[in-house]
Amino acid sequence: MKSIGFGVVGSGYMGKRHAVALQSVGSVFNTSLRPTCEVLCTSTDDGAAKMAAALGFHRSTGNWRQLVDDPAVEAIIIASPQTTHREIALAAFAAGKPVLCEKPLGASLDDARAMCTAANEARVVNMVGFNYMRTPASQLAYQIIQSGEIGEIVHVRAEHNEDFLADPSAPANWRTRGDASGTLGDLSPHMFNSVLRLVGPIESLVADAQIVHASRPSETGYEAVTNDDQANVLCRFANGAIGTLSFSRVALGRKLGYAFEIFGTKGSLRFDQEDQNALWFYKGSAEEGRRGFTKILTGPEHPDYKAFCLGPGHGTGYGDQLVIEARDFLVAIESGDAIFPTFRDGLEASRLVVASFASWREGRWVKLSNF
Amino acid sequence: MKSIGFGVVGSGYMGKRHAVALQSVGSVFNTSLRPTCEVLCTSTDDGAAKMAAALGFHRSTGNWRQLVDDPAVEAIIIASPQTTHREIALAAFAAGKPVLCEKPLGASLDDARAMCTAANEARVVNMVGFNYMRTPASQLAYQIIQSGEIGEIVHVRAEHNEDFLADPSAPANWRTRGDASGTLGDLSPHMFNSVLRLVGPIESLVADAQIVHASRPSETGYEAVTNDDQANVLCRFANGAIGTLSFSRVALGRKLGYAFEIFGTKGSLRFDQEDQNALWFYKGSAEEGRRGFTKILTGPEHPDYKAFCLGPGHGTGYGDQLVIEARDFLVAIESGDAIFPTFRDGLEASRLVVASFASWREGRWVKLSNF
Amino acid sequence: MKSIGFGVVGSGYMGKRHAVALQSVGSVFNTSLRPTCEVLCTSTDDGAAKMAAALGFHRSTGNWRQLVDDPAVEAIIIASPQTTHREIALAAFAAGKPVLCEKPLGASLDDARAMCTAANEARVVNMVGFNYMRTPASQLAYQIIQSGEIGEIVHVRAEHNEDFLADPSAPANWRTRGDASGTLGDLSPHMFNSVLRLVGPIESLVADAQIVHASRPSETGYEAVTNDDQANVLCRFANGAIGTLSFSRVALGRKLGYAFEIFGTKGSLRFDQEDQNALWFYKGSAEEGRRGFTKILTGPEHPDYKAFCLGPGHGTGYGDQLVIEARDFLVAIESGDAIFPTFRDGLEASRLVVASFASWREGRWVKLSNF
Amino acid sequence: MKSIGFGVVGSGYMGKRHAVALQSVGSVFNTSLRPTCEVLCTSTDDGAAKMAAALGFHRSTGNWRQLVDDPAVEAIIIASPQTTHREIALAAFAAGKPVLCEKPLGASLDDARAMCTAANEARVVNMVGFNYMRTPASQLAYQIIQSGEIGEIVHVRAEHNEDFLADPSAPANWRTRGDASGTLGDLSPHMFNSVLRLVGPIESLVADAQIVHASRPSETGYEAVTNDDQANVLCRFANGAIGTLSFSRVALGRKLGYAFEIFGTKGSLRFDQEDQNALWFYKGSAEEGRRGFTKILTGPEHPDYKAFCLGPGHGTGYGDQLVIEARDFLVAIESGDAIFPTFRDGLEASRLVVASFASWREGRWVKLSNF
Repeated sequence: MKSIGFGVVGSGYMGKRHAVALQSVGSVFNTSLRPTCEVLCTSTDDGAAKMAAALGFHRSTGNWRQLVDDPAVEAIIIASPQTTHREIALAAFAAGKPVLCEKPLGASLDDARAMCTAANEARVVNMVGFNYMRTPASQLAYQIIQSGEIGEIVHVRAEHNEDFLADPSAPANWRTRGDASGTLGDLSPHMFNSVLRLVGPIESLVADAQIVHASRPSETGYEAVTNDDQANVLCRFANGAIGTLSFSRVALGRKLGYAFEIFGTKGSLRFDQEDQNALWFYKGSAEEGRRGFTKILTGPEHPDYKAFCLGPGHGTGYGDQLVIEARDFLVAIESGDAIFPTFRDGLEASRLVVASFASWREGRWVKLSNF
Repeated sequence: MKSIGFGVVGSGYMGKRHAVALQSVGSVFNTSLRPTCEVLCTSTDDGAAKMAAALGFHRSTGNWRQLVDDPAVEAIIIASPQTTHREIALAAFAAGKPVLCEKPLGASLDDARAMCTAANEARVVNMVGFNYMRTPASQLAYQIIQSGEIGEIVHVRAEHNEDFLADPSAPANWRTRGDASGTLGDLSPHMFNSVLRLVGPIESLVADAQIVHASRPSETGYEAVTNDDQANVLCRFANGAIGTLSFSRVALGRKLGYAFEIFGTKGSLRFDQEDQNALWFYKGSAEEGRRGFTKILTGPEHPDYKAFCLGPGHGTGYGDQLVIEARDFLVAIESGDAIFPTFRDGLEASRLVVASFASWREGRWVKLSNF
Repeated sequence: MKSIGFGVVGSGYMGKRHAVALQSVGSVFNTSLRPTCEVLCTSTDDGAAKMAAALGFHRSTGNWRQLVDDPAVEAIIIASPQTTHREIALAAFAAGKPVLCEKPLGASLDDARAMCTAANEARVVNMVGFNYMRTPASQLAYQIIQSGEIGEIVHVRAEHNEDFLADPSAPANWRTRGDASGTLGDLSPHMFNSVLRLVGPIESLVADAQIVHASRPSETGYEAVTNDDQANVLCRFANGAIGTLSFSRVALGRKLGYAFEIFGTKGSLRFDQEDQNALWFYKGSAEEGRRGFTKILTGPEHPDYKAFCLGPGHGTGYGDQLVIEARDFLVAIESGDAIFPTFRDGLEASRLVVASFASWREGRWVKLSNF
Repeated sequence: MKSIGFGVVGSGYMGKRHAVALQSVGSVFNTSLRPTCEVLCTSTDDGAAKMAAALGFHRSTGNWRQLVDDPAVEAIIIASPQTTHREIALAAFAAGKPVLCEKPLGASLDDARAMCTAANEARVVNMVGFNYMRTPASQLAYQIIQSGEIGEIVHVRAEHNEDFLADPSAPANWRTRGDASGTLGDLSPHMFNSVLRLVGPIESLVADAQIVHASRPSETGYEAVTNDDQANVLCRFANGAIGTLSFSRVALGRKLGYAFEIFGTKGSLRFDQEDQNALWFYKGSAEEGRRGFTKILTGPEHPDYKAFCLGPGHGTGYGDQLVIEARDFLVAIESGDAIFPTFRDGLEASRLVVASFASWREGRWVKLSNF
């Protein structure tokens, strides 16, 4: 058992969840690397000091370079705004320190490419925070697909629908500004990543998107919304499957509508993150008259569940996804081996985002090979 | 109370269901027009005689012209193959007899146009058998949308997925031949009709479709499948909403996956025909902390339910949709007023089918105004 | 194919549903006996005439003896108030005419016994209208249990909960008066019948019951409620299983909460009439990691479904239960063989009702052999 | 912010979950008391040392008295076998140290009474580990009931069904020996505690229980099972409500079937731990035609959710219940105020267990006042 010092940039929602994950991952998984929370960085020294106390870090700073340079910081988690990802990651790689970067990889395809290149050149461990693929149910879905139990995939429906901006009187904020923060820019990468993992590469797509509420209240009156509230995508996969994807932040009633339905030649899967401890499995070869979707409740026989609960049905939660992610990051650091999803995987998601924007704006099918 | 003689062309699944509906509609709804089952027509005299006995018709024929000309036949239901719809309907209109024609309206857009024109010129009552919009739950959805309870519609997800051809060893038959019998040709019209009803006209769309199993066993070896097993559509509505539609006959596990999810600015609706007695309603203005999708079980306070069951939750079934349809056809005949869906509505669905084919084959967005 | 004349006593909810069933059963099941609706009887001549017209009967009467004596009436359905069942049934048996009697068999155990004895002595076909066991899903449950697929039954939870009297301002009526019309008297027989069918004889039980709303508005002010609003039962079955049953007419939110959960040594079943087209089946021997409750949607491969719908998932409704019941009654009449549930089965349900009342009033376990 | 040293007795499932909770509770809730994991005790020195390393404790011991006496240990969590609870708790109180004791409070009613008395006499903070009432959804249920939103409670169905011993070939172990480890002894206390909390005191009950599998494989052949595999209870509450409770460890398919359904005069609630992030709420006063059970997904507006996830629908898991419990224990320690559930609450649950055993063995209703 060996200790490893962590620096976390950002103390918002994700920064906090990473801190909690670092504090519990050792006990949960009995990891051989044991993280310590060394330095927390936020945008100001004062704020960082306050949050470091709250979240249990030894030191704090308002300057991320200090964090990167801190000799006690041996691994870095980037959970600051998307526009900052690139610079911090490049500095970290230059210092030879492993990086777990929140999604999306950067604020643009250019960022993502640069970060991916830097990671590969530095040969330093790198991961992207696509944590949804880490729920036991999602891992089980992957396992079932890999095993061939649903045969060849023929159709995929995937969506990531929420309603946090459904209220037209919700004020303008960073989320309503700029391509990187709309539904295609910010919500779609999670699901694109999952679909790439579960189904495989996408060859072409056609996308549509929309600003539903054109302006929103701001401090000085009204501010135009400059990014999409919802988007739809048709796609074709390299393996021949076809699919639809939808993304929305105005889908009233959907709170974490990260959901997929995957149809294969031998069976099907359905999943909805709002009931994250269940995976629905239809096995085509089941006995006639007894067939139907089976609600599999995650349990100790499924990936990464047993470390949390010995009994099936007890259920893991959102925070546990990040504990699994933290464990994987530690394993990658210790082994030096790449662990899904690397920056390369993050770049693939970014390519899909950019292709979707292009398709929408040009009103036509696009090939991914052009991005 | 007055008797009205019916002729039914076709004694397959739908022909039988129409016969049963005609026999019970009077008692269920206490209609003032009371149907009698006069003549049943199938492709042969012998077959027709046998089925007429089974289904309780007074007479039978292997020649549909005899049925149309029979003086006791005062109204006609066409439930024969799509290719026959046009000729029979035109003859019926020429004889001044009301027609309820199964969907799709004809085997081609040309058929649909001709049938629609003939109906309008003859000024005879005409309906298309899009029965799904007649379940109490679907009618309730329409009522909720019309009342403004979900506000302006912003997004629609609609699908009609089944799995009756998921097995690659299922033999080739009429369903696997020709545009009119594939998923776009045969499954999509029901849902296109519903979406037009619930959301409004579609202005443009882009479609993709696919033959999943290229050939199927036939009596002489293998036969090429010549129509689509599954299809996806993105669309834009005239009212500004956007949507996705999916159709499949190879979606393993989906038995009658006629389902929609409609998001508005004030609320949302979800429906799945596999649980046809429930409509899920999310009301955005419900009290904070008490909001969620409400599972409304259909009951006597909902459209057309009370005639079947005095108690809520008792539930109607597939056959009851056709009883409601029969009642509406009788009302239209008696009043002379057009009742949704008329041949005009059938034509609108057919235009969407043809536009989808064009979009798929040309690989681009198409405007409906061109079809 | 042969015609058989029916007389129906009662034109309330159930009378109407029976009329509709008689009119459609022939076409649905292609029965060799074809019912005609000969005579309808209600409490007054005028009312009967009006309802006979509405429901499609040839003749009507305000005197049930006329109906029983009518030579064209060859079979009788009793759907009048419970207190009238005994006299009508006895007269019908005396006339040698088959009887389908609505549940409960009579207004008291004494009635039930007398009716059962008369039926057996007359050797005339007799059935009780416990129609819930006739849904395809309930029949499938029975089939699965009989086949041994869930092994030995160890525990049963059964309930019949509705909320039609949950509102304390709902006025007093026949339902709020007398043992025969409360939850134990009127709601419990359906489920007792089902449990006897699915699980087997009950040896002992302990019951509790309660009047929740002591009085209700009446025309002259307030009227005391004299029967139970809800009841709970613990029981032990002859085969060693144990169980709980609950009955309520004040269970807010439950519309037709006729539901059971049956646990066996090899598997389990769950059913809720509010989603009557699904049976949930857990198979203990399914592969590890793939086990869970499977939602089996009823389809053509399940009992009595195919006559209604060729496609799975299309779904049957409440009215279809009565069509199946009518078919079974016709088969019994034609064959002369007893078909579940006979008056003997009705008597068994009545014994459980009376034993429950005794247990409740005496505050102790009771053995069924004493009733 | 102040540090507080913890000692944990037991390193099984619950010991581990408490360790993880102690490590993350500070960051999750920004508590002013910050726990440190000082001493872990298991049954042997070697085992304790190994587990202390795995779970991140500073020191370890095979002797719980050392842990109690350790000056750095300022608060104690007892997660060892039930038979040890009493002695450890009494020693801790003697040392003036707060205790969080796993359920059931002791191995007998005598234990529970002694522990409750000792806690009260020592005036030391004491809690019982009934963690299920701490999920946001369960807390929301409590809030809704307290607010009067469902009116007066009239009926309760509660159950705690699992299937961990459904397989008859599962070997005998501590769970199959002795009253304290069967379904009444070990499973029922959780739900009894919840029912007492949500509904109120129980006045009388009648219980039934059963050993389903009489013997199980042991190292030397077969061993008799000496405690109940399943149990059913009818009860009457002081407030007039009635209820049924079921407990099982052989309910095939139920993994964590801790579930309740509570009917009131104004509304109803349904909950199932297998989908722990949803509470189903039926509001009787909702608009006619729009009523139904609403699936409320837990979110930031519900109790204790926001500390885990800012977004609704993200979901908490089993481990998070223990983090909430740890926070409550810290708050109790800091404030000195009693926080539900105290040892007194644990004793109330134990009285219900003992009354159930008595009722079962004597075959009759019992009054709680006699226990």
